[in-house]
Amino acid sequence: MHPARAAGQNATPVAGSFATPSSGPLAGSAMLGNVTQVRDLSHIHSPTFPVFPGAQQMAINNLFTIESGGYYKNELVLDEHTGTHMDAPAHFADGGLTAELLPVEQLIAPLAVIDIAGRAASDPDAQLMPGDILAWEGEHGPLPAGAFVAMLSGWAERLVDPASYLNQDAAGVTHFPGFHPDAATLLAEERDIVGIGVDTISLDYGASQDFATHVTILAAGHFGIECLAALASVPATGATVIVGGPKHAGASGGPTRVIALS
Amino acid sequence: MHPARAAGQNATPVAGSFATPSSGPLAGSAMLGNVTQVRDLSHIHSPTFPVFPGAQQMAINNLFTIESGGYYKNELVLDEHTGTHMDAPAHFADGGLTAELLPVEQLIAPLAVIDIAGRAASDPDAQLMPGDILAWEGEHGPLPAGAFVAMLSGWAERLVDPASYLNQDAAGVTHFPGFHPDAATLLAEERDIVGIGVDTISLDYGASQDFATHVTILAAGHFGIECLAALASVPATGATVIVGGPKHAGASGGPTRVIALS
Repeated sequence: MHPARAAGQNATPVAGSFATPSSGPLAGSAMLGNVTQVRDLSHIHSPTFPVFPGAQQMAINNLFTIESGGYYKNELVLDEHTGTHMDAPAHFADGGLTAELLPVEQLIAPLAVIDIAGRAASDPDAQLMPGDILAWEGEHGPLPAGAFVAMLSGWAERLVDPASYLNQDAAGVTHFPGFHPDAATLLAEERDIVGIGVDTISLDYGASQDFATHVTILAAGHFGIECLAALASVPATGATVIVGGPKHAGASGGPTRVIALS
Repeated sequence: MHPARAAGQNATPVAGSFATPSSGPLAGSAMLGNVTQVRDLSHIHSPTFPVFPGAQQMAINNLFTIESGGYYKNELVLDEHTGTHMDAPAHFADGGLTAELLPVEQLIAPLAVIDIAGRAASDPDAQLMPGDILAWEGEHGPLPAGAFVAMLSGWAERLVDPASYLNQDAAGVTHFPGFHPDAATLLAEERDIVGIGVDTISLDYGASQDFATHVTILAAGHFGIECLAALASVPATGATVIVGGPKHAGASGGPTRVIALS
């Protein structure tokens, strides 16, 4: 019933670099206290964005162009756990919440960034240890209530060479940093968090054989975010993260727009 | 290389009502000024969520359960323009920005809600007119700079009966409210906005034959959000909207997590 609009050229999909997220000054709103900076912590997802070994790449299938149909749109086919994405509790926890049912107020959280990039630069099997959390608290004070705790390993910079992001050895084992299970236990049992995030492709380090950090965090009712961008550009403490997580029925997770305000 | 975790029952997808989004008090963050309430303006998307006539329903295909694979995850197949979703400028505008390239600071905006639900209750072809914008400004003052302007028509309540959301007549013509093209022109040419949103399935009213409001708003470089939830629960002025829009390459739009802070 809607005739196609007479139109000129198609808006061609732009394959932007997924390694260069944007930021800018907050404009127009007087509602957000002292916030002056907005930073995008999501990479651009695409059919070439690296995926966990064995998972399918996402596909973008054009349905119409402005020329062919009056408007431009695509079909997306994607594994929930690709791109910058959420792991909901139900991803690993029997009876855990799916993403669309997480209380929305948990998606707005004080952001704590724990930097292990120095160690990770020389050891791709580096893990964020309990001692790293205690050292952060020694410098910045106790983790704030309802915190989202992110590991900065420097891995986002490797997306210019996607193979180096997974960093598989000759046997296929991946080597990248993650939260050590003991750090996950400390956060789940002795701190007040809503979730954890990493700039790598898994909450557990690449050589993990058991997803122990996933299980500890998700079974405690918290969520994870993987493949975060631009963590090096946000302060270690004092920013607020907005987790624009997926909202489809029964979501084990899904692509997520993560924005930091500071 | 990751052996499946021994596990019990599968986390069954929960088909929650897409008509009842959640809200709650902001917790834990001291960074957001006077914000006390967080409201979810996105519906739960699902294979039964109504779509624009001719578009495909989204599909959720289970890939693994905890029992079968050690973790639970799904594949999603979806038209970018289904569920609560963004229309990027490129959806209708030659050379317009795709969603992933919109400046991130435009995704945080003061929210203005213009209520035409009274008129829409008796006239499903009601449109938000220039006079409705001027009346809003008469009551609340000028639209704030960088505003996101949302139409509240009451249509979200119709999702309990999806057919009434599209409201097609015997000839197949849809009947639901939208922004009148003259209101779109007023906003695009004489006000400072980042985008507009509706609680119906199209920025244009259902009986439109030409997508004139889409073209005016998107060609001006602004974005649209369709199928917004819970607009009746947010104040007409003073809230801030966070638009967790899609970030895949060449996005004409896509499912979007929209959150209001007030």
